[in-house]
Amino acid sequence: MSYQAPLQDIRFVIEKLAGLEEVQRLPGFEEATSELVDAVLNENARFVEGVMAPLNRVGDEQPAVWNDGAVTTSPGFKDAYRQFAEGGWQGLQHPVDFGGQGLPKLVGAPCIENMNAANLAFSLCPLLTDGVIEALLTAGSDEQKARYLPKLVEGTWTGTMNLTEPQAGSDLAQVRTRAVPQADGTYRIFGQKIFITWGEHDVAENIVHLVLARTPDAPPGVKGISLFIVPRRLVGEDGSLGQRNDVYCASLEHKLGIHGSPTAVLLYGEGKGEVGEGAIGYRVGEENRGLEYMFIMMNAARFAVGMQGVAVSERALQKAVRFAAERVQSRAIGSSKPADTIDQHPDVQRMLLTMRALTEGARATAYVAASLYDKAHHHADAEVRKRNQAAYEYLVPIVKGWSTEMSLEVTSLGVQVHGGMGFIEETGAAQYYRDARILPIYEGTTAIQANDLVGRKTVRDGGAVALGLIERMRETIAALEASGDEELGLVARRFTESVDDYEIVVNYVLETAGSDARAAYAGSVPYLQLAGIVHGGWHMARAALVCRKEHVGDAFHARKAATAAFYAMHILPRTHPLRLAITEGAQAVRWLVA
Amino acid sequence: MSYQAPLQDIRFVIEKLAGLEEVQRLPGFEEATSELVDAVLNENARFVEGVMAPLNRVGDEQPAVWNDGAVTTSPGFKDAYRQFAEGGWQGLQHPVDFGGQGLPKLVGAPCIENMNAANLAFSLCPLLTDGVIEALLTAGSDEQKARYLPKLVEGTWTGTMNLTEPQAGSDLAQVRTRAVPQADGTYRIFGQKIFITWGEHDVAENIVHLVLARTPDAPPGVKGISLFIVPRRLVGEDGSLGQRNDVYCASLEHKLGIHGSPTAVLLYGEGKGEVGEGAIGYRVGEENRGLEYMFIMMNAARFAVGMQGVAVSERALQKAVRFAAERVQSRAIGSSKPADTIDQHPDVQRMLLTMRALTEGARATAYVAASLYDKAHHHADAEVRKRNQAAYEYLVPIVKGWSTEMSLEVTSLGVQVHGGMGFIEETGAAQYYRDARILPIYEGTTAIQANDLVGRKTVRDGGAVALGLIERMRETIAALEASGDEELGLVARRFTESVDDYEIVVNYVLETAGSDARAAYAGSVPYLQLAGIVHGGWHMARAALVCRKEHVGDAFHARKAATAAFYAMHILPRTHPLRLAITEGAQAVRWLVA
Repeated sequence: MSYQAPLQDIRFVIEKLAGLEEVQRLPGFEEATSELVDAVLNENARFVEGVMAPLNRVGDEQPAVWNDGAVTTSPGFKDAYRQFAEGGWQGLQHPVDFGGQGLPKLVGAPCIENMNAANLAFSLCPLLTDGVIEALLTAGSDEQKARYLPKLVEGTWTGTMNLTEPQAGSDLAQVRTRAVPQADGTYRIFGQKIFITWGEHDVAENIVHLVLARTPDAPPGVKGISLFIVPRRLVGEDGSLGQRNDVYCASLEHKLGIHGSPTAVLLYGEGKGEVGEGAIGYRVGEENRGLEYMFIMMNAARFAVGMQGVAVSERALQKAVRFAAERVQSRAIGSSKPADTIDQHPDVQRMLLTMRALTEGARATAYVAASLYDKAHHHADAEVRKRNQAAYEYLVPIVKGWSTEMSLEVTSLGVQVHGGMGFIEETGAAQYYRDARILPIYEGTTAIQANDLVGRKTVRDGGAVALGLIERMRETIAALEASGDEELGLVARRFTESVDDYEIVVNYVLETAGSDARAAYAGSVPYLQLAGIVHGGWHMARAALVCRKEHVGDAFHARKAATAAFYAMHILPRTHPLRLAITEGAQAVRWLVA
Repeated sequence: MSYQAPLQDIRFVIEKLAGLEEVQRLPGFEEATSELVDAVLNENARFVEGVMAPLNRVGDEQPAVWNDGAVTTSPGFKDAYRQFAEGGWQGLQHPVDFGGQGLPKLVGAPCIENMNAANLAFSLCPLLTDGVIEALLTAGSDEQKARYLPKLVEGTWTGTMNLTEPQAGSDLAQVRTRAVPQADGTYRIFGQKIFITWGEHDVAENIVHLVLARTPDAPPGVKGISLFIVPRRLVGEDGSLGQRNDVYCASLEHKLGIHGSPTAVLLYGEGKGEVGEGAIGYRVGEENRGLEYMFIMMNAARFAVGMQGVAVSERALQKAVRFAAERVQSRAIGSSKPADTIDQHPDVQRMLLTMRALTEGARATAYVAASLYDKAHHHADAEVRKRNQAAYEYLVPIVKGWSTEMSLEVTSLGVQVHGGMGFIEETGAAQYYRDARILPIYEGTTAIQANDLVGRKTVRDGGAVALGLIERMRETIAALEASGDEELGLVARRFTESVDDYEIVVNYVLETAGSDARAAYAGSVPYLQLAGIVHGGWHMARAALVCRKEHVGDAFHARKAATAAFYAMHILPRTHPLRLAITEGAQAVRWLVA
């Protein structure tokens, strides 16, 4: 089996670290019993292992093919997508009212992780559909919800996000696509969108494009952008499919990785459909508030891309562990055999442990964030909802930015463990290295996440959320120290140093953001990285507490505790150079520019 | 122009940091006048920029093609190789006696860097030939030298290293290829070799394979391996080409990168040539000393692979700098324009400076090592030669291991600077990311380099060389502090902390290697990384001294000093987590294994 869902770690994290029980007690989640959660996780594992994982290499080696605007996806993808939709996987976290299962994000997150680990390129399609559903749920009219949501939730149609244009990447102020109002209240859309993930394909019968565009009198910049639904085929009131809209896939990109995911250039308004010139679009919400709505979608997608980072790391780890357990090279220190499997060599162990520690730390951070989301949306107490929402929003750029950056290190180590075989494409380790490279770029680069973390998430509330989290970290330190356990004491020592670094940095950001914005932003990505390392280390330390106190002796928990200790000794000290780069390094960036 | 040789930095480093003048005064280098060195560097730049660089993408997109044992290289490669040979580039550093130019390694190193920056896949061919020349110069008989060296030095023939077999990668003890002695003193070779770089091609008229194999009564393990010359075509006494030998290229690998370099599976003794069964081989030196000779070759090749790390980093840096200067996105802090080029944004500056600082630090370290090599081979005083040889040998695993590991970071940042465009293959940044990934693997993985650094290079001499270098670093610190310059004072502060880390680690390795080998080797790669960072930081600090004292005001030197300061503030602090991982982290590796 090329991928095995890490169900034991997933269950440990959702139960012991992310508070599944508490989430199950929230209003609206009454049906998410432990039996149901178990059944969902098991069925998800079965599906991704059996159907999606075997197609991962197929997609890499046989990318989607473009022919005069039509796209044929990789062999097997269409049938797998049909099974995906029939299994109800698209609707997992979406409202029962629109055909979904209404499960907590804390249950959805591991399913999404497993799907992406099994097949990152394939899973991008439902990932984008999720975003479209979120945006329509929040900003769509009742009529739009009724017309589009049921089909999207059941997976009959898929969704896309159309933001990027050649001159407008991270800078959406430069969007030029035009939306011309028509007498009947619809719009005609004209323009070119690039990098549209799953922008054209053959796995579903329709595609709902959400498109950013400007109306004729819109103000310049980001305050003049509106959001439009542009279905590939028009949809009748009864949900029936009508004419082909004027959106045309001009080409697919030739990419470094995620070959199985067709990345389209879409032309709107070239007269290529059956509706005359201009793609027919329906405005979502109010005029000029498009970016705001798109951010709803982006936030859902950003969390999911963070899960992709965890997912591709887990997949790379599993492959490296298997290889290292089989490959025999050189005698290990102290061994009496002529040669041992390479997982007996200390440097290979160091690499595998680094991979495991980072992956588990990022997973725990993401699931804890998912749990905050559930409380933010379902808790009975408005004050609790608000507090959890703020904490969730603080964590989103960290989950997105750090999980994806660390996946570059993990997938690179995955290649290295394989030695020369790792560089040969047939081995498969190289695919994860290539696939992962998009993760810190799309749905907002790491710099964009870091700017969000500094500006909207740290400075805006005067550091309230960040400093509140630090306070809770210090409670964990106290518990580690109170345990009297030697190993936990070591973890506490390292964790204390890193939490101190974290606090210094948060205060530095708060102090400089007003007086010296360049200094604050020169350290934004190091701040994000530092925060990711500390949050991962926090939940690994919490895991160590559970394992050393409740489960001494059991193999899984012993390994988990050891991984946490490795995290503390090898990963946490990385906060030191990051802290120095932030608090003392801004000047060095300026020297060059001067 | 896709690549421009960084001649200003190269000249600065060879003159101000690596002591070109001193090298020029060595016996045997009388003709390497400054005029000649200049002419060589200029001509090299012209050649690599005009001929080799434009073929870099061609090789990536149109790899060599195999057809029934014959290999047709990428379009343009054959003609470029002809020009390479005619230009005398293969002979640059080789003895005048065999047709070379006998130039110092300090002059050869920048030429090799530039060739590899222009076209990594192409330059691997001469890189391997260099290794074969070195091995034959040291271990070949006079007759072998006379027969093979002139053609290799002039580039008419190329050379390969045949070490790896499916079961023998890093562990050469497991080599199984057989060498059966014949009545005429020759051998017949039987076996399979894999991952043979430029193992078959059409750019030169013959290939000289150096092959590791076992004679019938050889002891097991690495002490039973001999080295053989196996020419693709037999060579007559007059140098004329004879029968096709029994070595057959069974296939080429499909690799993550360096597509333009054919990586061959070679079958020896399958009866596919014109000489009957068994490839005819000629033993080099004594029986069972093959590994020792191969290490001569490996050491030359390892240094060169380190230069490849610098080279691909420089190339990625140049591309990222150009893109960032042209791409307009978002308003920079404090700007009055609607949008600025992205090199005005602090995080892009941080990324570009990280790329530049690492590249320049690694370049300086490598060139200083080249200068040590020249003194080790040419100095009149045997004691000085010995001292320099020891220092050079200490630096080889660092140059190889660290320059290549840091190239992964630099080429990854190169992709990131490009945003979404970086993930599109046509952009070109992704090629450097893919190409670089082989560098920490071939010619000995980073772990192999690190084991060498710990065992043969640090423990064997009781740390004499390492601690001697640390003493010299402290002299630089004294000079920085004595300068009274504020910026140099900051550099001194950071450099002192890192040198302290370095010294602690060297002493830790010395103390534990005997008593607790697993602990010493669990930290071997972090030790190598730490040493690389400190050596790079040392030479950057020396550069800053020169720039701030002698050249204040000039743009190049101002930038160099600023890059050195950035290195000190952003890169040097990375020694802290590495030191902790080494001195306190070994236990964490053990916990898991237990």
